[in-house]
Amino acid sequence: MPAGRLYGLGIGPGDPELLTLKALRLLQATPVVAYPVSEHGNSMARTIVADYLTHAPIEVPMSFPFSAEHSAQPSYDRAAAVLAEHLSQGRDVVVLCEGDPFFYGTFMYLFTRLRDRFGTEVVPGVSSLMGSASVLGTPLTYRNDVFMVLPAMLPAETLATRLALADAAVIIKLGRHFPKVYTVLQQVGLLARAHYIQCATMPEQQVLALEQVDPAQVPYFSMIVIPSLWHTDPGLPA
Amino acid sequence: MPAGRLYGLGIGPGDPELLTLKALRLLQATPVVAYPVSEHGNSMARTIVADYLTHAPIEVPMSFPFSAEHSAQPSYDRAAAVLAEHLSQGRDVVVLCEGDPFFYGTFMYLFTRLRDRFGTEVVPGVSSLMGSASVLGTPLTYRNDVFMVLPAMLPAETLATRLALADAAVIIKLGRHFPKVYTVLQQVGLLARAHYIQCATMPEQQVLALEQVDPAQVPYFSMIVIPSLWHTDPGLPA
Repeated sequence: MPAGRLYGLGIGPGDPELLTLKALRLLQATPVVAYPVSEHGNSMARTIVADYLTHAPIEVPMSFPFSAEHSAQPSYDRAAAVLAEHLSQGRDVVVLCEGDPFFYGTFMYLFTRLRDRFGTEVVPGVSSLMGSASVLGTPLTYRNDVFMVLPAMLPAETLATRLALADAAVIIKLGRHFPKVYTVLQQVGLLARAHYIQCATMPEQQVLALEQVDPAQVPYFSMIVIPSLWHTDPGLPA
Repeated sequence: MPAGRLYGLGIGPGDPELLTLKALRLLQATPVVAYPVSEHGNSMARTIVADYLTHAPIEVPMSFPFSAEHSAQPSYDRAAAVLAEHLSQGRDVVVLCEGDPFFYGTFMYLFTRLRDRFGTEVVPGVSSLMGSASVLGTPLTYRNDVFMVLPAMLPAETLATRLALADAAVIIKLGRHFPKVYTVLQQVGLLARAHYIQCATMPEQQVLALEQVDPAQVPYFSMIVIPSLWHTDPGLPA
């Protein structure tokens, strides 16, 4: 019996209509659908595709607890073993990935554990970077802009030196790092250009000025978008 | 009569199946479809969606010639005037945008000229960054990586200083700048990690080692992808 094939499926930033045609086709043709769940058992990824799960697939919720004390490695090992069992028995498996699977995704922890044993394919998805820019109604980058993506967990010094060399940037995975990032943006003079956004393209989406943000209520999946300055000056040469 | 609505439609990196469900719905419901054409009259954007144009829309090919001597501004003005005429007469207009409209796209030149007069909406698309990573089968970024997008037209010095501070990067719009970029990558020790790719996810797609690239044959829509080092070492902590 030939082994199954593993698909990392980019399902986009949150709006179910932002799935690609390819992701929808593979999702509905695949007998096993795996997705990450929170410690409370919720799955944002499953919620996004819920209306498309009309073929009653086998579902594999995967929990990846992490903390300062405990590595998530054992939970990746366990999830990879469950998927390997399905694949070995000839069943194709899709792993639902918010945004894009290869762009800051947890899919790569499964990918690195399974790619040598099974055929794998990644279907790229709409990133939340682009989802956020569309919601803001603001062009992100232009012509010869240097664009950077900076995870908020980086040290303040690292963030400041990189931001000083960027024409446009997005700071991702804010969570508890919001106060540090706010201070950095103040120091480098970027506060006025920065937009806060959480759950872009989802029903619970919020866009706030940085001053309006309650630092105690900032989720991990939130970001600060600093668009290129150019768009404010349409007189500049194209 | 109410004015029409302007849509910037991200149609993804090239594979027609990488359109989003939303882009397809709007494309097929909109009476006017505009797209850029080359000086030879070809349109990559129209080719991508050709099979979906079943409703016989009014088509608006837009030519944006540019050179060192001539600004493209007058051609943006002309195209905006044509679209404004359709919008004023109550017809919705979609502008086809390869990749994502707000990410290094020409759509923003039309957007800045029309957004104050007409309702506008951008539908985010799959970027060629993510399309290229999927084709390479290589995770692009991981956890707290600093990620950069660098247009190849930047000076060598600018490219070198930014690359030295990046964990992963994509150098876009190579074209005639390939030899300069090659030299920079050699200087900063990144040649071995760099992948050349053109027309990712299209039938004519090519993935080459940098040594195999003929500098005389590098198109504008080609890129060099430098993935995060992490993926080569799955033993690193997650």
